[in-house]
Amino acid sequence: VFSVKNVSETFNIIQEQFSGYPLDEEWVNLTDALYRITAVDIAAQENVPGFDRSSVDGFAVMAADTFGSSDSMPAQLKLSGEVKMGEKPGFAIKAGHAAYIPTGGELPQNADAVVMVEYTENLHDGYIYVNKPVAPGNNVVLKGDDTRCGDLVIMAGRRLKPQNIGVMAALGINRVRVRRKLKAAVISTGNEIVSPDERPAGSQVRDVNTYTLYSGLCAFGAQPVTYGIIKDDYETIRKTVGKALDECDIVLVSGGSSVGTMDETHRVIDSLGKPGVLVHGIAVKPGKPTIIGKIGGKAVVGLPGHPASAYVIFRVFVYKLMEVMQGSSAENETSVKAYMKVNYPSNNGREEFLPVKLERVGDRLAAQPFFSKSGLITFLSSADGLVRIKRGREGLNAGEEVEVVLL
Amino acid sequence: VFSVKNVSETFNIIQEQFSGYPLDEEWVNLTDALYRITAVDIAAQENVPGFDRSSVDGFAVMAADTFGSSDSMPAQLKLSGEVKMGEKPGFAIKAGHAAYIPTGGELPQNADAVVMVEYTENLHDGYIYVNKPVAPGNNVVLKGDDTRCGDLVIMAGRRLKPQNIGVMAALGINRVRVRRKLKAAVISTGNEIVSPDERPAGSQVRDVNTYTLYSGLCAFGAQPVTYGIIKDDYETIRKTVGKALDECDIVLVSGGSSVGTMDETHRVIDSLGKPGVLVHGIAVKPGKPTIIGKIGGKAVVGLPGHPASAYVIFRVFVYKLMEVMQGSSAENETSVKAYMKVNYPSNNGREEFLPVKLERVGDRLAAQPFFSKSGLITFLSSADGLVRIKRGREGLNAGEEVEVVLL
Repeated sequence: VFSVKNVSETFNIIQEQFSGYPLDEEWVNLTDALYRITAVDIAAQENVPGFDRSSVDGFAVMAADTFGSSDSMPAQLKLSGEVKMGEKPGFAIKAGHAAYIPTGGELPQNADAVVMVEYTENLHDGYIYVNKPVAPGNNVVLKGDDTRCGDLVIMAGRRLKPQNIGVMAALGINRVRVRRKLKAAVISTGNEIVSPDERPAGSQVRDVNTYTLYSGLCAFGAQPVTYGIIKDDYETIRKTVGKALDECDIVLVSGGSSVGTMDETHRVIDSLGKPGVLVHGIAVKPGKPTIIGKIGGKAVVGLPGHPASAYVIFRVFVYKLMEVMQGSSAENETSVKAYMKVNYPSNNGREEFLPVKLERVGDRLAAQPFFSKSGLITFLSSADGLVRIKRGREGLNAGEEVEVVLL
Repeated sequence: VFSVKNVSETFNIIQEQFSGYPLDEEWVNLTDALYRITAVDIAAQENVPGFDRSSVDGFAVMAADTFGSSDSMPAQLKLSGEVKMGEKPGFAIKAGHAAYIPTGGELPQNADAVVMVEYTENLHDGYIYVNKPVAPGNNVVLKGDDTRCGDLVIMAGRRLKPQNIGVMAALGINRVRVRRKLKAAVISTGNEIVSPDERPAGSQVRDVNTYTLYSGLCAFGAQPVTYGIIKDDYETIRKTVGKALDECDIVLVSGGSSVGTMDETHRVIDSLGKPGVLVHGIAVKPGKPTIIGKIGGKAVVGLPGHPASAYVIFRVFVYKLMEVMQGSSAENETSVKAYMKVNYPSNNGREEFLPVKLERVGDRLAAQPFFSKSGLITFLSSADGLVRIKRGREGLNAGEEVEVVLL
């Protein structure tokens, strides 16, 4: 019994079946944390800044001493002391006094504002002349203004960017609890497939999927494990998928775009455990012959053999699967708006993910679709993104605005 | 003499001074090629596909034999042979004959089209009944249709994505000539700076820039080399920058946001070689105290000490510098359109790169600016991108469309 699903149904099945996947956690140093997924909420254990500090180069004062000052009537303040970077000021500001303070320097006791150097004059007579009043708090960053002890600064499930890593450094967090990288098996099947190292004999073709999927997994932040090219028969596929299931979280089996081979992958999945095949065929172009199965909590995905179809399905459905399994939000999906450069007919009743090339025209982006009948990889190599054409649309019109998910 | 430049002038100086930087080349395997920069144009050495093949499951025929066929008057063709995947068909199609062929199978001699299984009937009487005519070439991909021997498939200076790596696999290219990764030194200066491993004493603050810059360099695809935290004096800076220049292509020195320290970095750069400092201060917010120098072809950049400013300058100017030095096109700069959620005043005569948070509102993105006076990193951690406010603008209006470069 085939259970062909449409795109939304497939996304829902992925969400329901694979969220909460039990992925181990590990500690990593900050320099290894880029693009890793936080396993826990991270809260500040201290205040930032840890002391009241100046945000400019200038003079620490009691604001009231500057009230009423102007160019013609500057406030004369006795220069007493200098704040040094990184050192506690060893003095307090008295009424009528001022002290030099650099940007980031700690505010001396009693000072409640800083006058910028630009608004002072120094006649080297032991006084500083302020020609513009400041209000209390001016040019001062108070202890905890940036982050207060206890504030949630990074949520669990976040993919760490450089600026997030910077915040942890600022807070003295030098190791971070992250989820283990997803391990994904890459298996190419097909009697006609040979390695790129070999010269195809007869009508053999080279293995492309191992390389696009391997690189695609790295780009996502997963750890690929390759299992080579295997013959297209039930026992070999079963043995290899079984081994891969022991060693990985996700198993990607590409090849078998014909109905016969699909059936074999289906039988293999059902033979290896429960619940087995969840989706057998997706009403989508390209990539109709896609299988999604679940065995003991892990995922097995049968991808089409055609390299372009396999990669599109990988980017759309396997990306989604991996986000769900590692519990990360889809915040990182990058899409841009563009307009269609030409009409694109699409009347096949299935949703379509259309590869397009983007081109800047004035301050807009134009999307040029590819009309390729070969299903090979070359055209995808020139593609910048995918446009999703929803069900019920008969295609896209020239000039129409579309959302392009970047490849 | 200060040579403060505006943003466009700075970009031009970077372009003029650092293009053609002599970066070594190296060979990498396809599985190590992700996001590397191609050093040479890559041309196909063979045709893809390498033989005429079927793009569907069906029957290889001489198209003329199907002309005039219909549901009520099917063409009766003698079933003779079956094409096997990956094997040369050992037979030719004769007039009035047909042979089963799977998707990707090689077209037998004399066949010029394939009839899809769906348009045939098999009564198991040794014949196949075709109920829809095909034209010559239908459902066939000819040798070289995808890529012809000699075609340029990937240009020099391209950052390799998974689909580009797939094309090379298809063409039997298993190693690729790429430019060496740029090596970039990361040096933090400041007497008040301590490592995140230490508890700040007095009014010390933790080193943030080493971590944001290290991660940012990794994200770009450069190789960071850290030189730790050094004291803010001429001799120490000079010794460390000199060593870093020997070992790296680019030296990033952060710290020294005050005029005094800027002068020291300036003197260090000028003392180490020609032409020395090119840009001393950029009319930009944040990050005015930025220095760009050139010594023996290599780049030294003095970044502001404030973590948020340093990271913005890194993303805007050091990214540009690295693209120019490695000769890659800026094709990968990812920006999205959004509208301003609120007014943002900006009347300081300098261009501004404004950190914003993005939020989906219907099918549009809304950009919410940060109003932070601290210059610390926390607010940047919540930022999704930067909006460039050009010179001469007095700010941005609520509802105005802006381009957001994603962080």
